[in-house]
Amino acid sequence: MRAVVAENRRLIVRDYSEPVPEAGEILVAVRACGICGSDLHTLAHGDEVASLGEALGADTGFDPALPYVLGHEFCGEVLDAGAETFGFEAGDLVVSMPFLLRPSGLVPLGFANAAPGGYAERMVLTGGICLKVPNGLDHRRAALTEPMAVALHAVNKSGIKQGDAAVIVGCGPIGLAMIPWLRLRGIEPIVAADFSAKRRALALELGADLAVDPRDESVTDAWRRVDGAKELVIFEAVGTPGMIDSVVSMAPSRARLLIAGVCMPPDTFRPFVAIVKELSIQFVYCYDGDEFAATLRAIAEGEVVVDSLITGTVGFDGVSEAFRLLGDPEDHVKILIEPGSGPEVLHVST
Amino acid sequence: MRAVVAENRRLIVRDYSEPVPEAGEILVAVRACGICGSDLHTLAHGDEVASLGEALGADTGFDPALPYVLGHEFCGEVLDAGAETFGFEAGDLVVSMPFLLRPSGLVPLGFANAAPGGYAERMVLTGGICLKVPNGLDHRRAALTEPMAVALHAVNKSGIKQGDAAVIVGCGPIGLAMIPWLRLRGIEPIVAADFSAKRRALALELGADLAVDPRDESVTDAWRRVDGAKELVIFEAVGTPGMIDSVVSMAPSRARLLIAGVCMPPDTFRPFVAIVKELSIQFVYCYDGDEFAATLRAIAEGEVVVDSLITGTVGFDGVSEAFRLLGDPEDHVKILIEPGSGPEVLHVST
Repeated sequence: MRAVVAENRRLIVRDYSEPVPEAGEILVAVRACGICGSDLHTLAHGDEVASLGEALGADTGFDPALPYVLGHEFCGEVLDAGAETFGFEAGDLVVSMPFLLRPSGLVPLGFANAAPGGYAERMVLTGGICLKVPNGLDHRRAALTEPMAVALHAVNKSGIKQGDAAVIVGCGPIGLAMIPWLRLRGIEPIVAADFSAKRRALALELGADLAVDPRDESVTDAWRRVDGAKELVIFEAVGTPGMIDSVVSMAPSRARLLIAGVCMPPDTFRPFVAIVKELSIQFVYCYDGDEFAATLRAIAEGEVVVDSLITGTVGFDGVSEAFRLLGDPEDHVKILIEPGSGPEVLHVST
Repeated sequence: MRAVVAENRRLIVRDYSEPVPEAGEILVAVRACGICGSDLHTLAHGDEVASLGEALGADTGFDPALPYVLGHEFCGEVLDAGAETFGFEAGDLVVSMPFLLRPSGLVPLGFANAAPGGYAERMVLTGGICLKVPNGLDHRRAALTEPMAVALHAVNKSGIKQGDAAVIVGCGPIGLAMIPWLRLRGIEPIVAADFSAKRRALALELGADLAVDPRDESVTDAWRRVDGAKELVIFEAVGTPGMIDSVVSMAPSRARLLIAGVCMPPDTFRPFVAIVKELSIQFVYCYDGDEFAATLRAIAEGEVVVDSLITGTVGFDGVSEAFRLLGDPEDHVKILIEPGSGPEVLHVST
């Protein structure tokens, strides 16, 4: 089959060995797969990702020096005739948490040599954890289940409740994806910050009450201007070194910080500032199966509207260009790969 | 009056201007005042303490280049005839949160030039926030109210509840002081760690189930050996750079970290480790008035037994020697200054 293969830190479109379902697995045709910031990071710093995984005791057998296929935000169409064992028919759209449950252990789809992720024509999935896309939801919106589940988990772990206020630092895909969940929970005001005018506009479209350029006004000052009284949760969704110290500095006393940005290198901050303000900091990673299923349902029911997050689509031959474009926050938020589409990154207007 | 005066980073016993009560204040004779680690830090690094206070917007007018009198863990005997306005009689023992409420603002006793702290024969207190020592409790145990309130606040803010387990990293005064509160709350096991054999013995005496030398076994490994199943709260009570990364490294997934150690300089840790483990980190500072009052009551009722924390007493002329001894964890935990006592640091056996 055709796939976008990561080799020597580059993406090559070429033939790749056809994935063969093992016991308990089904074969799907990939209909859409989102490009995630962690895909860009893994392509550039695969050794770091693999060694951090090992250091944490997760022996996934990932060797970025060997070819692998990225893609963990996918929606597929069931091909396998044996899929009825799991309640699916050929032609059904399905999504799945991005891993295979194999007797040898867990295989993280998109970050493994053992099985291709969603940057390919076809992939295998563990049948027992696939979810049928309900309600006639199309494959593009369904492919947003994974990043929206990351955002739901962050909101859940923050403990935010009606009557609290939210500040969002960084309007990348995850920062933006938290906004509809916060809105659904009745949180107001939601005050967002980003250097990009386009992303600030998207934040407002997704339900933020105010979106500021941090060069003009700090986001907590903006929150003080429109509220300043409620209990505040600050969602850090940038993940670069220095951001933790930055949110610790801007936080009001007794604020809760939710660190959704993934900072891989060591980072320095001033504990004494966090101490005097009695801050609490919650770190989050991933989501659980209930959150993943709840996300798919909420998107399909229209409870969270994700359309404006999807800013582009592209075929295999344009993925390298899409990676380049995603480096510039003025241009795109989420680009979906659709196998069979052309090499141009098309803007999606929703 | 006589006082131990901090001047040019040294402690000098000399005459000092008699404090004069302003409106709403009472005069007390200091009966006991504990030496706190922050006293040692302030004497050595007063500029840093003053500038950090300013950076945080607390303009206390503290200038460590001018003389000041340390001491914020005090118990005093009421001298002032006007004290009956506040329900006290001359001779009553009182304690107070260590600040004055003056029209010009809050004066932090022990860290201000404007009024002497407890390293003196006499001091003034704001009458309205003084608490009469009940139940015939003696002045030594009453002087432990302040550090025990710090420990109570840390335990309260940790959210620990019956059925959880506790690990205590560092058995200095605050690490040790948390143990009786955790025991009172029914927490078990309580596993403590310290390099000092004496402090480990004190941890067991105060109610820890296990106390380990980190050179022999990590404290979380020790916890796994005796429990390993309950939800875990890790109390960091060392406060030196590197400790946050150390507790992040040793923590099991989803543990809660309570940072009770006060790390003044910037510190570096690995956010990615905290992210993958989904840790939460709560920073704490001080206590509130309810916690201070509850602490005095609990000590007076014998609900928390603090005796073994008091390892020594000394008069004014031995305070410099006491500061030196407190640098060696094998020798002392809490030394109380008792005005009128001699220059030798006497060991207290309780």
